[in-house]
Amino acid sequence: MASLSNDSNENSHFRLAGLDGTASRSIVDVHGVMFGGSELAIAGGPCGVESKEQVFAVARYIAEAGVRLFRAGAYKPRTSPYSFQGLGPEGLALLRAVKKEFDLGIVTEATDLESFADVERVADLIQIGARNMQNFALLRRAGNSDKPIMLKRGQGATLEEWLSAAEYILSEGNSRLILCERGIRTWSNHARYTFDVSVIPAVKAISHLPIIADPSHATGRSDLVIPCALAGVAAGADGILVETHCQPASALSDGQQALLPNDFATLVTRAYKIKDGLQSAKANS
Amino acid sequence: MASLSNDSNENSHFRLAGLDGTASRSIVDVHGVMFGGSELAIAGGPCGVESKEQVFAVARYIAEAGVRLFRAGAYKPRTSPYSFQGLGPEGLALLRAVKKEFDLGIVTEATDLESFADVERVADLIQIGARNMQNFALLRRAGNSDKPIMLKRGQGATLEEWLSAAEYILSEGNSRLILCERGIRTWSNHARYTFDVSVIPAVKAISHLPIIADPSHATGRSDLVIPCALAGVAAGADGILVETHCQPASALSDGQQALLPNDFATLVTRAYKIKDGLQSAKANS
Amino acid sequence: MASLSNDSNENSHFRLAGLDGTASRSIVDVHGVMFGGSELAIAGGPCGVESKEQVFAVARYIAEAGVRLFRAGAYKPRTSPYSFQGLGPEGLALLRAVKKEFDLGIVTEATDLESFADVERVADLIQIGARNMQNFALLRRAGNSDKPIMLKRGQGATLEEWLSAAEYILSEGNSRLILCERGIRTWSNHARYTFDVSVIPAVKAISHLPIIADPSHATGRSDLVIPCALAGVAAGADGILVETHCQPASALSDGQQALLPNDFATLVTRAYKIKDGLQSAKANS
Amino acid sequence: MASLSNDSNENSHFRLAGLDGTASRSIVDVHGVMFGGSELAIAGGPCGVESKEQVFAVARYIAEAGVRLFRAGAYKPRTSPYSFQGLGPEGLALLRAVKKEFDLGIVTEATDLESFADVERVADLIQIGARNMQNFALLRRAGNSDKPIMLKRGQGATLEEWLSAAEYILSEGNSRLILCERGIRTWSNHARYTFDVSVIPAVKAISHLPIIADPSHATGRSDLVIPCALAGVAAGADGILVETHCQPASALSDGQQALLPNDFATLVTRAYKIKDGLQSAKANS
Repeated sequence: MASLSNDSNENSHFRLAGLDGTASRSIVDVHGVMFGGSELAIAGGPCGVESKEQVFAVARYIAEAGVRLFRAGAYKPRTSPYSFQGLGPEGLALLRAVKKEFDLGIVTEATDLESFADVERVADLIQIGARNMQNFALLRRAGNSDKPIMLKRGQGATLEEWLSAAEYILSEGNSRLILCERGIRTWSNHARYTFDVSVIPAVKAISHLPIIADPSHATGRSDLVIPCALAGVAAGADGILVETHCQPASALSDGQQALLPNDFATLVTRAYKIKDGLQSAKANS
Repeated sequence: MASLSNDSNENSHFRLAGLDGTASRSIVDVHGVMFGGSELAIAGGPCGVESKEQVFAVARYIAEAGVRLFRAGAYKPRTSPYSFQGLGPEGLALLRAVKKEFDLGIVTEATDLESFADVERVADLIQIGARNMQNFALLRRAGNSDKPIMLKRGQGATLEEWLSAAEYILSEGNSRLILCERGIRTWSNHARYTFDVSVIPAVKAISHLPIIADPSHATGRSDLVIPCALAGVAAGADGILVETHCQPASALSDGQQALLPNDFATLVTRAYKIKDGLQSAKANS
Repeated sequence: MASLSNDSNENSHFRLAGLDGTASRSIVDVHGVMFGGSELAIAGGPCGVESKEQVFAVARYIAEAGVRLFRAGAYKPRTSPYSFQGLGPEGLALLRAVKKEFDLGIVTEATDLESFADVERVADLIQIGARNMQNFALLRRAGNSDKPIMLKRGQGATLEEWLSAAEYILSEGNSRLILCERGIRTWSNHARYTFDVSVIPAVKAISHLPIIADPSHATGRSDLVIPCALAGVAAGADGILVETHCQPASALSDGQQALLPNDFATLVTRAYKIKDGLQSAKANS
Repeated sequence: MASLSNDSNENSHFRLAGLDGTASRSIVDVHGVMFGGSELAIAGGPCGVESKEQVFAVARYIAEAGVRLFRAGAYKPRTSPYSFQGLGPEGLALLRAVKKEFDLGIVTEATDLESFADVERVADLIQIGARNMQNFALLRRAGNSDKPIMLKRGQGATLEEWLSAAEYILSEGNSRLILCERGIRTWSNHARYTFDVSVIPAVKAISHLPIIADPSHATGRSDLVIPCALAGVAAGADGILVETHCQPASALSDGQQALLPNDFATLVTRAYKIKDGLQSAKANS
């Protein structure tokens, strides 16, 4: 396989992320939800925490749909310094309230070293975002955390670079790591990014790490989210991370990619159906 | 949505391919197999016709797997003039023999005007390959054929360019047209191409044409073919086009992406399972 | 170097295009203008032939700027069948008139087999466009022409695929071949295409063929044309192909990338200045 | 112009980087070398600091070639945690010695917050690398520095994202900012990255910031460095950043893209020649 690595004279083996280094596939437990086994893990929620009303409303219908993980950002990395950057500590407090009220596990992003410890106290699964996939100081900090980490693929990162970034976390001692494909930047312009679905089995071919799909960021179009989420599940993803919002049109960020409540419930039903179909087909073959 | 069209001052509406121009979605009948309705259409076979032994062996296990369309190239467009270019007329004769012996519909490529009529006499579905997606003289010829056409997406073509190419065929009067996503060229290097799965629902959002997926060319790796084929089905593809070969290692072209017989049968079973799961989920919602 | 070739089991050597196959670099004479030696070849003109007034006006100021090759399309390959497709035979007649009136060599595109002979009778240099880079029947026809050929790089073609396409022409016996870089499709969105300037020295590292740059199609923005044309010359291009128009805003195609007459003259002056600087620097080193 | 921004509902104006916000183009003085005016700024040196012998040897011939800025990394961001990460503080001490011995300005990278202050004490120009282009905490720290900053373009970043990252630095109060194009990731595989030369005039069309080119990282091939450096200058770059090494084959990182001493001197001569040619052409027009 061709290598486009930026560091061509490096040792490119994946000492800890590779399949060789482990007897079996990893399973990561997040608030009782298993990533990497025979179940399908689903996390849903709005892009960013905006208000108590917003997060409680979303948390309620997510829980009713049978989903046990709530995702929302209190800290939002934004392209422009003039954009809404998240509610910060206030957002974390709201996430803590969601967890208490609905018994949902919290998935939220740590964007820098300064706020990492605060995020760590609230999160059940800490997200390292695509922009920070090669923020090595942040990766090392995540590697020293006692919380599970979800490492998103950089929008311009090869599989090799992604697994090498995973090595930064693993080599610091944190083995509870989940990968997340969230679309790559290409010239194909019908969607915001190109959902690189084949990377899911390609990861599984060389790594023991669980991998999930984020069809919301990958497509940026709510009408493509359900088909791409199901595609991810059919390709072998261990879970999906989906944006949903009661009033997408008024969201402070990324509203155009959020599913409405009913569509979210539809997705959950279909995703389990696909997963069950795959499991039964495998059992019979 | 951003437009990267090369012809920015053109009228970019899709007069005949667009959803507006028709009352309902098109269904194309190829040898009794329906593309575009509630069924899943599957075509399998080797990359190229090599010998009677080869095509008969593959045709036999394809038919046994319940598949009714045989795909193989008698004319092979190749990057280099020094590569195997296909058996030509002899290959067409072998395809005719396959059809007679196994009652399989024939899917095969027409690469130029000169051999088009010969291909037309044998094929039940004529493929226009990715390299020829903007070979406008060939598209016009296809538009004047009385056989159904499968138009593959160019490796560097946007959705807009692809549907515009479809307009060349449709505007000549041939409405039996099927689109085929076969991977696009990106920098992501774990697979030969990037299987752009989100284009499937994106096509369905604006066009009535059936669309299928070719996971073999899209990935170039046999271990990624099944997951990506299932991903395509889960995303809403009307069918799949898959390479399979008894002895992939000795294939004259593209052996590394061909499924072995048992894997092909596994794929067929799982693909129908996914399709059924989707259909029943839709029926219930 | 990594290979992303679609035909991975092919022999990828460039028997005729490669540096090994020749004692020295090729020089192609087009109407007395040398492509491939120490001179800089320049061709200018509008995207398409529109009227006698248009082509005569442009030809006049091009000739006054000291340029001896006129480029314009009589046949225009267009993304949509509903776009202006060129004047055809009438356009060729106007090009013949330009040649007679101004003694300019004619550079124009052959888009298909049907009109090839007509184009051949008028053109001093026949262009094979980017969309047709892998239209192998057309390449073979060009290889049998007695006129020089300019082969544009496909928007999604690697260097390997481009030189392999050149082999189709060369292997038919036509050795008067010039390559033209015209931009590749990437996600970088400040210009229509990404002008891949490094391919110029990369071609020269492995091939004896002359190579020129088309900054007009590469950028699609008239304000980027002069800088990119000069970049191409500085990188070692043997010539440049530039769109210019008296009234870009009213052009029937690609007006937004055409230089105004004064800007065209400025470009010519600066391009020769860069070329001279390079030549004198090489002479002194 | 199409926007592929990840934050589509943001205000995308460039308040401080934009041309509107300033009366004239910025000129940044680094150790007496001007970036942004009529001169051409050149910085050369090895990829990483390896030893006193190495940096002194390179510094000597760089100074002899008339270059006044030395670039080398003491901290090296690397794809893999198991690769050579730079000499760190010891490397900074060697850079300080180079500065004292040869009176060369020092250009070196700050990779994280922890070591920023140490880098700041030695550097005359602090580089923010491509991987950190959207490390917003690091950008804010750079914005609070009293040293000039060079912001490299991310390998997958659009012009809009790049200038938005510049806003993070500028909005903190540091206006001495230089942009550096270092190649983008595309599928074009004859070079490590695609040198996006047209971004140079595209930046100048909307921003007052100086912009330079790094042809070494952009191509990854020493034989393409000189042509691409000259292309950058011809396209209007305010300077070039070039890797050079006495013994490229034994470099600990990126040796395959470093120029030998003689080639570096040749590049300097030709680059000034191109710049002079451009300046005189502009003076005459």
